[in-house]
Amino acid sequence: MTFYEKLAAIWKKNDSMVCVGLDPDFNKLPERFRKSSTPFLDFNKFLVDATSDLVCAYKPQAAYYAGQNADDQLAATIAYIKENHPEIPVILDVKRGDIGSTAAMYAREAFERYGADAVTVNPYMGSDALKPFLDYADKGVIILCRTSNPGGGDLQNLMCDGRPLYEHVAELARDKYNYNRNVALVIGATYPEELGKVRSICPDMPFLVPGVGAQGGDVAKVLEHGAAAGGYGLVINSSRGIIYAADPELAARELRDLIRRSAAR
Amino acid sequence: MTFYEKLAAIWKKNDSMVCVGLDPDFNKLPERFRKSSTPFLDFNKFLVDATSDLVCAYKPQAAYYAGQNADDQLAATIAYIKENHPEIPVILDVKRGDIGSTAAMYAREAFERYGADAVTVNPYMGSDALKPFLDYADKGVIILCRTSNPGGGDLQNLMCDGRPLYEHVAELARDKYNYNRNVALVIGATYPEELGKVRSICPDMPFLVPGVGAQGGDVAKVLEHGAAAGGYGLVINSSRGIIYAADPELAARELRDLIRRSAAR
Repeated sequence: MTFYEKLAAIWKKNDSMVCVGLDPDFNKLPERFRKSSTPFLDFNKFLVDATSDLVCAYKPQAAYYAGQNADDQLAATIAYIKENHPEIPVILDVKRGDIGSTAAMYAREAFERYGADAVTVNPYMGSDALKPFLDYADKGVIILCRTSNPGGGDLQNLMCDGRPLYEHVAELARDKYNYNRNVALVIGATYPEELGKVRSICPDMPFLVPGVGAQGGDVAKVLEHGAAAGGYGLVINSSRGIIYAADPELAARELRDLIRRSAAR
Repeated sequence: MTFYEKLAAIWKKNDSMVCVGLDPDFNKLPERFRKSSTPFLDFNKFLVDATSDLVCAYKPQAAYYAGQNADDQLAATIAYIKENHPEIPVILDVKRGDIGSTAAMYAREAFERYGADAVTVNPYMGSDALKPFLDYADKGVIILCRTSNPGGGDLQNLMCDGRPLYEHVAELARDKYNYNRNVALVIGATYPEELGKVRSICPDMPFLVPGVGAQGGDVAKVLEHGAAAGGYGLVINSSRGIIYAADPELAARELRDLIRRSAAR
Protein backbone atom coordinates (compact mmCIF):
# COMPACT_ATOMS: atom_id res chain seq x y z
CA MET A 1 0.00 0.00 0.00
CA THR A 2 1.26 3.46 -0.80
CA PHE A 3 1.26 6.29 1.73
CA TYR A 4 -1.65 7.97 -0.09
CA GLU A 5 -3.67 4.72 0.02
CA LYS A 6 -2.85 4.14 3.65
CA LEU A 7 -3.94 7.67 4.57
CA ALA A 8 -7.17 7.39 2.56
CA ALA A 9 -8.03 4.15 4.32
CA ILE A 10 -7.37 5.37 7.85
CA TRP A 11 -9.13 8.73 7.34
CA LYS A 12 -12.23 6.70 6.48
CA LYS A 13 -11.84 3.87 9.00
CA ASN A 14 -11.37 6.13 12.03
CA ASP A 15 -13.24 9.06 10.46
CA SER A 16 -10.43 11.17 11.86
CA MET A 17 -7.85 13.65 10.65
CA VAL A 18 -6.06 13.81 14.02
CA CYS A 19 -2.36 13.06 14.18
CA VAL A 20 -0.82 12.64 17.61
CA GLY A 21 2.72 14.01 17.92
CA LEU A 22 4.80 11.67 20.04
CA ASP A 23 7.23 14.27 21.40
CA PRO A 24 8.01 13.20 24.95
CA ASP A 25 10.08 15.54 27.10
CA PHE A 26 11.37 13.72 30.17
CA ASN A 27 10.78 16.71 32.41
CA LYS A 28 7.11 16.86 31.44
CA LEU A 29 6.27 13.16 31.71
CA PRO A 30 3.73 12.04 34.29
CA GLU A 31 5.56 10.84 37.38
CA ARG A 32 4.75 7.16 36.88
CA PHE A 33 6.66 7.04 33.58
CA ARG A 34 9.76 8.76 34.85
CA LYS A 35 10.70 5.79 37.00
CA SER A 36 10.89 3.43 34.04
CA SER A 37 14.14 2.54 32.30
CA THR A 38 12.26 3.17 29.02
CA PRO A 39 10.13 6.18 29.98
CA PHE A 40 9.50 7.43 26.43
CA LEU A 41 8.53 4.03 25.08
CA ASP A 42 6.16 3.35 28.00
CA PHE A 43 4.59 6.78 27.64
CA ASN A 44 4.15 6.33 23.89
CA LYS A 45 2.59 2.88 24.33
CA PHE A 46 0.12 4.37 26.76
CA LEU A 47 -0.73 7.14 24.27
CA VAL A 48 -1.09 4.75 21.35
CA ASP A 49 -3.27 2.34 23.32
CA ALA A 50 -5.50 5.25 24.35
CA THR A 51 -5.90 6.84 20.91
CA SER A 52 -5.51 4.23 18.17
CA ASP A 53 -9.18 4.38 17.12
CA LEU A 54 -9.19 8.19 17.10
CA VAL A 55 -6.27 9.09 14.86
CA CYS A 56 -5.12 8.99 11.24
CA ALA A 57 -1.39 9.01 12.02
CA TYR A 58 1.29 9.17 14.68
CA LYS A 59 4.17 11.57 14.31
CA PRO A 60 7.21 11.04 16.51
CA GLN A 61 9.50 14.07 16.45
CA ALA A 62 13.03 12.70 16.11
CA ALA A 63 14.60 15.62 18.00
CA TYR A 64 13.11 14.50 21.30
CA TYR A 65 14.76 11.12 20.99
CA ALA A 66 18.03 12.46 19.57
CA GLY A 67 18.29 15.16 22.24
CA GLN A 68 17.56 12.76 25.06
CA ASN A 69 19.77 9.94 23.79
CA ALA A 70 16.84 7.61 23.24
CA ASP A 71 17.00 6.50 19.61
CA ASP A 72 16.30 2.93 20.69
CA GLN A 73 13.01 4.00 22.28
CA LEU A 74 12.06 5.76 19.05
CA ALA A 75 12.70 2.53 17.14
CA ALA A 76 10.74 0.50 19.70
CA THR A 77 7.83 2.97 19.58
CA ILE A 78 7.52 2.68 15.81
CA ALA A 79 7.83 -1.11 16.02
CA TYR A 80 5.04 -1.17 18.61
CA ILE A 81 2.71 0.82 16.36
CA LYS A 82 3.55 -1.32 13.32
CA GLU A 83 2.88 -4.52 15.25
CA ASN A 84 -0.37 -3.50 16.90
CA HIS A 85 -1.82 -1.01 14.43
CA PRO A 86 -0.24 -1.61 11.02
CA GLU A 87 -3.04 0.39 9.40
CA ILE A 88 -1.95 3.66 11.10
CA PRO A 89 0.81 5.49 9.22
CA VAL A 90 3.84 6.65 11.18
CA ILE A 91 5.34 9.96 10.11
CA LEU A 92 8.90 10.41 11.27
CA ASP A 93 9.33 14.15 11.76
CA VAL A 94 12.98 14.87 11.00
CA LYS A 95 12.88 17.72 8.43
CA ARG A 96 15.97 16.41 6.67
CA GLY A 97 17.61 18.09 3.72
CA ASP A 98 21.07 17.37 2.34
CA ILE A 99 22.96 16.56 -0.87
CA GLY A 100 22.02 13.37 -2.68
CA SER A 101 24.54 10.91 -1.27
CA THR A 102 23.82 12.12 2.26
CA ALA A 103 20.07 12.28 1.74
CA ALA A 104 20.21 8.63 0.70
CA MET A 105 21.61 7.83 4.15
CA TYR A 106 18.83 9.83 5.81
CA ALA A 107 16.22 8.03 3.71
CA ARG A 108 17.72 4.76 4.85
CA GLU A 109 17.49 5.97 8.46
CA ALA A 110 13.81 6.91 8.19
CA PHE A 111 12.48 4.11 6.04
CA GLU A 112 14.76 1.17 6.78
CA ARG A 113 16.28 1.69 10.22
CA TYR A 114 13.06 3.06 11.72
CA GLY A 115 10.49 1.69 9.26
CA ALA A 116 8.50 4.93 9.07
CA ASP A 117 5.73 5.30 6.48
CA ALA A 118 6.55 8.92 5.79
CA VAL A 119 9.17 11.52 6.60
CA THR A 120 9.26 15.31 6.74
CA VAL A 121 11.88 17.02 4.57
CA ASN A 122 13.16 20.54 4.01
CA PRO A 123 13.00 21.94 0.45
CA TYR A 124 15.84 24.50 0.74
CA MET A 125 18.39 22.28 -1.04
CA GLY A 126 16.13 21.42 -3.96
CA SER A 127 15.33 18.46 -6.15
CA ASP A 128 18.39 16.25 -5.86
CA ALA A 129 18.23 16.53 -2.06
CA LEU A 130 14.64 15.25 -2.16
CA LYS A 131 15.08 12.55 -4.78
CA PRO A 132 16.46 9.78 -2.53
CA PHE A 133 13.30 10.12 -0.42
CA LEU A 134 10.92 10.51 -3.37
CA ASP A 135 12.31 7.37 -4.96
CA TYR A 136 10.79 5.26 -2.18
CA ALA A 137 7.50 5.21 -4.10
CA ASP A 138 5.45 3.60 -1.31
CA LYS A 139 6.65 6.03 1.35
CA GLY A 140 5.34 9.52 1.96
CA VAL A 141 7.59 12.58 1.58
CA ILE A 142 6.18 15.58 3.39
CA ILE A 143 7.85 18.81 2.30
CA LEU A 144 7.95 21.95 4.46
CA CYS A 145 5.98 24.65 2.69
CA ARG A 146 4.55 27.29 5.08
CA THR A 147 5.52 26.43 8.63
CA SER A 148 3.55 27.29 11.76
CA ASN A 149 6.24 29.19 13.65
CA PRO A 150 6.52 33.00 13.84
CA GLY A 151 9.90 33.15 12.06
CA GLY A 152 8.62 30.99 9.22
CA GLY A 153 7.94 34.14 7.21
CA ASP A 154 11.61 35.26 7.23
CA LEU A 155 12.12 33.34 3.99
CA GLN A 156 8.80 31.69 3.20
CA ASN A 157 6.96 34.98 2.71
CA LEU A 158 9.62 36.68 0.60
CA MET A 159 8.06 37.71 -2.70
CA CYS A 160 9.79 35.83 -5.51
CA ASP A 161 8.72 36.64 -9.06
CA GLY A 162 5.47 38.06 -7.77
CA ARG A 163 4.45 35.45 -5.24
CA PRO A 164 5.70 34.24 -1.90
CA LEU A 165 8.38 31.59 -1.70
CA TYR A 166 6.07 29.02 -0.11
CA GLU A 167 3.83 29.13 -3.20
CA HIS A 168 6.85 28.26 -5.33
CA VAL A 169 7.47 25.29 -3.06
CA ALA A 170 3.85 24.17 -3.53
CA GLU A 171 4.20 24.46 -7.31
CA LEU A 172 7.48 22.56 -7.34
CA ALA A 173 5.84 19.87 -5.21
CA ARG A 174 2.95 19.61 -7.64
CA ASP A 175 4.88 19.89 -10.92
CA LYS A 176 8.32 18.48 -10.27
CA TYR A 177 8.59 16.42 -7.09
CA ASN A 178 5.42 14.32 -7.15
CA TYR A 179 6.46 11.91 -9.92
CA ASN A 180 5.71 8.95 -7.66
CA ARG A 181 2.47 10.34 -6.21
CA ASN A 182 3.88 10.29 -2.69
CA VAL A 183 4.35 13.97 -1.85
CA ALA A 184 2.57 15.90 0.88
CA LEU A 185 3.15 19.40 2.30
CA VAL A 186 3.55 20.92 5.76
CA ILE A 187 1.35 24.00 6.21
CA GLY A 188 0.89 25.54 9.63
CA ALA A 189 -2.59 25.93 11.12
CA THR A 190 -1.54 29.39 12.25
CA TYR A 191 -1.81 30.78 8.70
CA PRO A 192 -5.21 29.58 7.40
CA GLU A 193 -5.37 32.00 4.45
CA GLU A 194 -1.99 30.78 3.26
CA LEU A 195 -3.21 27.24 3.75
CA GLY A 196 -6.08 28.13 1.42
CA LYS A 197 -3.71 29.48 -1.23
CA VAL A 198 -1.69 26.28 -1.16
CA ARG A 199 -4.88 24.21 -1.33
CA SER A 200 -5.80 26.02 -4.52
CA ILE A 201 -2.41 25.11 -5.98
CA CYS A 202 -2.59 21.46 -4.85
CA PRO A 203 -6.31 20.56 -4.61
CA ASP A 204 -5.88 16.88 -3.71
CA MET A 205 -2.52 16.66 -2.00
CA PRO A 206 -2.40 15.61 1.68
CA PHE A 207 -1.28 18.39 4.02
CA LEU A 208 0.32 17.87 7.40
CA VAL A 209 -0.94 20.71 9.57
CA PRO A 210 0.89 21.45 12.81
CA GLY A 211 0.05 24.38 15.03
CA VAL A 212 -3.37 23.68 16.51
CA GLY A 213 -3.44 23.59 20.30
CA ALA A 214 -0.34 24.98 22.01
CA GLN A 215 0.61 27.09 18.97
CA GLY A 216 -2.87 28.63 18.68
CA GLY A 217 -4.17 27.55 15.25
CA ASP A 218 -7.96 27.61 14.75
CA VAL A 219 -9.42 24.26 13.70
CA ALA A 220 -12.54 25.68 12.02
CA LYS A 221 -10.44 27.95 9.83
CA VAL A 222 -8.07 25.11 8.97
CA LEU A 223 -11.00 23.06 7.70
CA GLU A 224 -12.57 25.97 5.88
CA HIS A 225 -9.37 26.79 3.98
CA GLY A 226 -7.56 23.46 3.88
CA ALA A 227 -9.92 20.52 3.29
CA ALA A 228 -9.19 18.67 0.06
CA ALA A 229 -11.52 18.83 -2.92
CA GLY A 230 -12.95 15.37 -2.17
CA GLY A 231 -13.04 15.73 1.64
CA TYR A 232 -10.43 14.77 4.22
CA GLY A 233 -6.96 15.71 2.90
CA LEU A 234 -5.55 16.89 6.22
CA VAL A 235 -3.34 15.36 8.89
CA ILE A 236 -3.87 17.76 11.76
CA ASN A 237 -1.18 17.33 14.35
CA SER A 238 -1.44 17.98 18.05
CA SER A 239 1.40 17.10 20.35
CA ARG A 240 1.42 18.90 23.71
CA GLY A 241 -2.37 19.44 23.66
CA ILE A 242 -2.97 15.69 23.66
CA ILE A 243 0.02 13.94 25.16
CA TYR A 244 0.18 16.06 28.33
CA ALA A 245 -3.61 16.31 28.76
CA ALA A 246 -4.99 14.86 31.99
CA ASP A 247 -6.85 12.41 29.75
CA PRO A 248 -5.14 12.02 26.37
CA GLU A 249 -7.94 9.81 25.02
CA LEU A 250 -10.50 12.49 25.79
CA ALA A 251 -8.30 15.21 24.31
CA ALA A 252 -7.83 13.24 21.09
CA ARG A 253 -11.55 12.50 20.90
CA GLU A 254 -12.45 16.15 21.43
CA LEU A 255 -10.06 17.26 18.70
CA ARG A 256 -11.38 14.59 16.34
CA ASP A 257 -14.95 15.66 17.00
CA LEU A 258 -14.15 19.36 16.66
CA ILE A 259 -12.59 18.61 13.26
CA ARG A 260 -15.64 16.53 12.25
CA ARG A 261 -18.04 19.31 13.18
CA SER A 262 -15.92 21.90 11.35
CA ALA A 263 -15.75 19.68 8.26
CA ALA A 264 -19.55 19.23 8.26
CA ARG A 265 -20.28 22.95 8.15
CA MET B 1 36.98 30.14 23.63
CA THR B 2 34.30 30.98 21.07
CA PHE B 3 33.96 29.19 17.76
CA TYR B 4 35.35 32.23 15.92
CA GLU B 5 38.38 32.32 18.24
CA LYS B 6 38.94 28.61 17.92
CA LEU B 7 38.83 28.83 14.13
CA ALA B 8 41.17 31.84 14.02
CA ALA B 9 43.68 29.98 16.20
CA ILE B 10 43.68 26.75 14.21
CA TRP B 11 43.81 28.48 10.81
CA LYS B 12 47.03 30.07 11.99
CA LYS B 13 48.49 27.14 13.94
CA ASN B 14 48.12 24.61 11.11
CA ASP B 15 48.19 27.26 8.38
CA SER B 16 45.33 25.31 6.86
CA MET B 17 41.77 25.86 5.72
CA VAL B 18 41.13 22.16 5.09
CA CYS B 19 38.23 20.47 6.80
CA VAL B 20 38.01 16.70 6.61
CA GLY B 21 34.50 15.32 6.32
CA LEU B 22 34.19 12.17 8.40
CA ASP B 23 31.46 10.48 6.35
CA PRO B 24 32.23 6.77 6.48
CA ASP B 25 30.16 4.45 4.32
CA PHE B 26 30.59 0.84 5.42
CA ASN B 27 30.65 -0.43 1.85
CA LYS B 28 33.53 1.87 0.94
CA LEU B 29 35.74 1.30 3.99
CA PRO B 30 39.14 -0.28 3.49
CA GLU B 31 38.90 -4.01 4.19
CA ARG B 32 40.86 -3.89 7.45
CA PHE B 33 38.26 -1.64 9.10
CA ARG B 34 35.25 -3.66 8.06
CA LYS B 35 36.17 -6.52 10.37
CA SER B 36 36.04 -4.33 13.46
CA SER B 37 33.03 -4.12 15.75
CA THR B 38 33.48 -0.33 15.61
CA PRO B 39 34.48 0.16 11.97
CA PHE B 40 33.54 3.84 11.72
CA LEU B 41 35.28 4.82 14.92
CA ASP B 42 38.44 2.96 13.98
CA PHE B 43 38.45 4.49 10.50
CA ASN B 44 37.90 7.98 11.91
CA LYS B 45 40.70 7.57 14.46
CA PHE B 46 43.01 6.55 11.64
CA LEU B 47 41.98 9.63 9.62
CA VAL B 48 42.35 12.00 12.57
CA ASP B 49 45.76 10.60 13.53
CA ALA B 50 46.91 11.04 9.93
CA THR B 51 45.67 14.59 9.40
CA SER B 52 45.50 16.46 12.71
CA ASP B 53 48.36 18.85 11.81
CA LEU B 54 46.91 19.54 8.37
CA VAL B 55 43.34 20.64 9.07
CA CYS B 56 41.32 23.45 10.58
CA ALA B 57 38.26 21.33 11.42
CA TYR B 58 36.63 17.93 11.27
CA LYS B 59 33.09 17.59 10.03
CA PRO B 60 31.27 14.35 10.76
CA GLN B 61 28.09 14.07 8.69
CA ALA B 62 25.41 12.79 11.07
CA ALA B 63 23.47 11.01 8.32
CA TYR B 64 26.17 8.39 7.89
CA TYR B 65 25.92 7.43 11.54
CA ALA B 66 22.12 7.71 11.71
CA GLY B 67 21.65 5.69 8.53
CA GLN B 68 24.04 2.96 9.64
CA ASN B 69 22.79 2.76 13.24
CA ALA B 70 26.08 3.96 14.67
CA ASP B 71 25.31 7.02 16.80
CA ASP B 72 27.59 5.67 19.52
CA GLN B 73 30.54 5.66 17.11
CA LEU B 74 29.77 9.27 16.20
CA ALA B 75 29.87 10.18 19.89
CA ALA B 76 33.10 8.24 20.39
CA THR B 77 34.68 9.90 17.34
CA ILE B 78 33.97 13.38 18.64
CA ALA B 79 35.19 12.40 22.11
CA TYR B 80 38.42 11.10 20.56
CA ILE B 81 39.05 14.38 18.75
CA LYS B 82 38.24 16.44 21.87
CA GLU B 83 40.59 14.37 23.98
CA ASN B 84 43.54 14.30 21.62
CA HIS B 85 43.15 17.53 19.67
CA PRO B 86 41.01 19.93 21.70
CA GLU B 87 42.21 22.81 19.54
CA ILE B 88 40.52 21.43 16.40
CA PRO B 89 36.85 22.42 16.10
CA VAL B 90 34.33 19.69 15.36
CA ILE B 91 31.43 20.68 13.11
CA LEU B 92 28.48 18.34 13.39
CA ASP B 93 26.83 18.40 9.98
CA VAL B 94 23.13 17.85 10.62
CA LYS B 95 21.38 20.71 8.78
CA ARG B 96 18.66 20.92 11.40
CA GLY B 97 15.70 23.27 11.25
CA ASP B 98 12.54 23.09 13.31
CA ILE B 99 10.25 25.13 15.57
CA GLY B 100 11.76 26.58 18.74
CA SER B 101 10.90 23.89 21.29
CA THR B 102 12.10 21.18 18.91
CA ALA B 103 15.17 23.13 17.83
CA ALA B 104 16.13 23.35 21.50
CA MET B 105 16.23 19.54 21.60
CA TYR B 106 18.39 19.46 18.47
CA ALA B 107 20.75 22.04 19.97
CA ARG B 108 21.03 19.84 23.02
CA GLU B 109 21.81 16.88 20.79
CA ALA B 110 24.60 18.68 18.93
CA PHE B 111 26.22 20.64 21.73
CA GLU B 112 25.54 18.57 24.84
CA ARG B 113 25.01 14.96 23.80
CA TYR B 114 27.77 15.06 21.15
CA GLY B 115 29.82 18.03 22.38
CA ALA B 116 30.29 19.53 18.92
CA ASP B 117 31.81 23.01 18.54
CA ALA B 118 29.50 23.97 15.70
CA VAL B 119 26.47 22.68 13.87
CA THR B 120 24.99 23.20 10.41
CA VAL B 121 21.40 24.47 10.28
CA ASN B 122 18.77 25.13 7.62
CA PRO B 123 17.33 28.67 7.36
CA TYR B 124 13.96 27.79 5.79
CA MET B 125 12.05 28.05 9.08
CA GLY B 126 13.51 31.41 10.09
CA SER B 127 14.69 33.17 13.20
CA ASP B 128 12.92 31.35 16.01
CA ALA B 129 14.05 28.02 14.57
CA LEU B 130 17.66 29.25 14.70
CA LYS B 131 17.56 30.97 18.08
CA PRO B 132 18.05 27.91 20.33
CA PHE B 133 21.31 27.26 18.46
CA LEU B 134 22.38 30.91 18.30
CA ASP B 135 21.90 31.27 22.04
CA TYR B 136 24.84 28.95 22.65
CA ALA B 137 27.18 31.91 22.31
CA ASP B 138 30.42 29.89 22.32
CA LYS B 139 29.21 27.45 19.70
CA GLY B 140 29.21 28.01 15.95
CA VAL B 141 25.97 28.04 13.94
CA ILE B 142 26.59 27.46 10.26
CA ILE B 143 23.60 28.39 8.13
CA LEU B 144 22.93 26.94 4.68
CA CYS B 145 23.14 29.79 2.17
CA ARG B 146 24.09 28.63 -1.36
CA THR B 147 24.59 24.90 -1.36
CA SER B 148 26.91 22.96 -3.64
CA ASN B 149 24.38 20.55 -5.15
CA PRO B 150 22.76 20.93 -8.59
CA GLY B 151 19.20 21.30 -7.20
CA GLY B 152 20.33 23.98 -4.77
CA GLY B 153 19.14 26.62 -7.21
CA ASP B 154 15.50 25.41 -7.17
CA LEU B 155 14.81 27.81 -4.31
CA GLN B 156 18.12 29.50 -3.54
CA ASN B 157 18.36 31.24 -6.92
CA LEU B 158 14.76 32.44 -7.06
CA MET B 159 14.75 36.22 -7.46
CA CYS B 160 13.13 37.78 -4.39
CA ASP B 161 12.74 41.55 -4.38
CA GLY B 162 15.42 41.88 -7.01
CA ARG B 163 18.05 39.50 -5.71
CA PRO B 164 18.39 35.76 -5.25
CA LEU B 165 17.09 34.10 -2.12
CA TYR B 166 20.57 33.08 -0.92
CA GLU B 167 21.58 36.75 -0.76
CA HIS B 168 18.65 37.38 1.57
CA VAL B 169 19.89 34.57 3.76
CA ALA B 170 23.35 36.16 3.85
CA GLU B 171 21.84 39.51 4.83
CA LEU B 172 19.67 37.95 7.53
CA ALA B 173 22.75 36.17 8.85
CA ARG B 174 24.69 39.42 8.98
CA ASP B 175 21.93 41.72 10.27
CA LYS B 176 19.62 39.57 12.36
CA TYR B 177 21.09 36.23 13.36
CA ASN B 178 24.66 37.11 14.35
CA TYR B 179 23.87 38.79 17.68
CA ASN B 180 26.32 36.50 19.47
CA ARG B 181 29.04 36.64 16.80
CA ASN B 182 28.85 32.91 16.22
CA VAL B 183 27.29 32.63 12.75
CA ALA B 184 28.91 31.16 9.66
CA LEU B 185 27.49 30.28 6.24
CA VAL B 186 27.57 27.27 3.94
CA ILE B 187 28.46 28.22 0.35
CA GLY B 188 29.29 25.59 -2.20
CA ALA B 189 32.62 25.61 -4.02
CA THR B 190 30.70 24.80 -7.18
CA TYR B 191 29.39 28.38 -7.46
CA PRO B 192 32.44 30.63 -6.99
CA GLU B 193 30.82 33.80 -8.35
CA GLU B 194 27.97 33.40 -5.89
CA LEU B 195 30.53 32.79 -3.17
CA GLY B 196 32.03 36.14 -4.13
CA LYS B 197 28.66 37.88 -3.86
CA VAL B 198 28.10 36.49 -0.39
CA ARG B 199 31.65 37.48 0.61
CA SER B 200 30.85 41.04 -0.36
CA ILE B 201 27.78 40.92 1.92
CA CYS B 202 29.65 39.32 4.83
CA PRO B 203 33.33 40.36 4.49
CA ASP B 204 34.60 38.72 7.69
CA MET B 205 32.24 35.85 8.34
CA PRO B 206 33.61 32.29 8.23
CA PHE B 207 32.26 30.22 5.34
CA LEU B 208 32.05 26.45 5.27
CA VAL B 209 32.71 25.47 1.67
CA PRO B 210 31.77 21.97 0.56
CA GLY B 211 32.03 20.77 -3.00
CA VAL B 212 35.73 20.61 -3.82
CA GLY B 213 36.93 17.19 -4.88
CA ALA B 214 34.17 14.72 -5.76
CA GLN B 215 31.65 17.48 -6.49
CA GLY B 216 34.04 19.33 -8.81
CA GLY B 217 34.61 22.74 -7.17
CA ASP B 218 37.75 24.66 -8.20
CA VAL B 219 40.01 25.58 -5.27
CA ALA B 220 41.72 28.52 -6.97
CA LYS B 221 38.37 30.12 -7.75
CA VAL B 222 37.12 29.49 -4.24
CA LEU B 223 40.09 31.40 -2.85
CA GLU B 224 39.84 34.15 -5.41
CA HIS B 225 36.17 34.83 -4.63
CA GLY B 226 35.81 33.65 -1.06
CA ALA B 227 38.82 34.54 1.09
CA ALA B 228 37.95 36.87 3.96
CA ALA B 229 39.09 40.48 4.03
CA GLY B 230 41.85 39.71 6.55
CA GLY B 231 42.91 36.37 5.01
CA TYR B 232 41.73 32.87 5.87
CA GLY B 233 37.95 32.93 6.47
CA LEU B 234 37.23 29.58 4.81
CA VAL B 235 36.65 26.05 6.04
CA ILE B 236 37.04 24.06 2.84
CA ASN B 237 35.60 20.62 3.24
CA SER B 238 36.67 17.49 1.45
CA SER B 239 35.18 14.15 2.39
CA ARG B 240 35.47 11.43 -0.24
CA GLY B 241 38.56 13.01 -1.82
CA ILE B 242 40.52 12.57 1.40
CA ILE B 243 39.00 9.76 3.40
CA TYR B 244 38.98 7.20 0.58
CA ALA B 245 42.34 8.29 -0.87
CA ALA B 246 45.03 5.62 -0.94
CA ASP B 247 46.96 7.92 1.41
CA PRO B 248 44.61 10.28 3.29
CA GLU B 249 47.50 12.18 4.88
CA LEU B 250 48.96 12.91 1.47
CA ALA B 251 45.56 13.90 0.07
CA ALA B 252 44.96 16.29 2.97
CA ARG B 253 48.45 17.75 2.60
CA GLU B 254 48.01 18.27 -1.13
CA LEU B 255 44.69 20.03 -0.61
CA ARG B 256 46.17 22.21 2.13
CA ASP B 257 49.10 23.15 -0.08
CA LEU B 258 46.88 23.81 -3.08
CA ILE B 259 44.82 26.17 -0.93
CA ARG B 260 47.98 27.87 0.37
CA ARG B 261 49.30 28.44 -3.13
CA SER B 262 45.92 29.76 -4.31
CA ALA B 263 45.72 32.09 -1.31
CA ALA B 264 49.21 33.47 -1.99
CA ARG B 265 48.41 34.49 -5.56
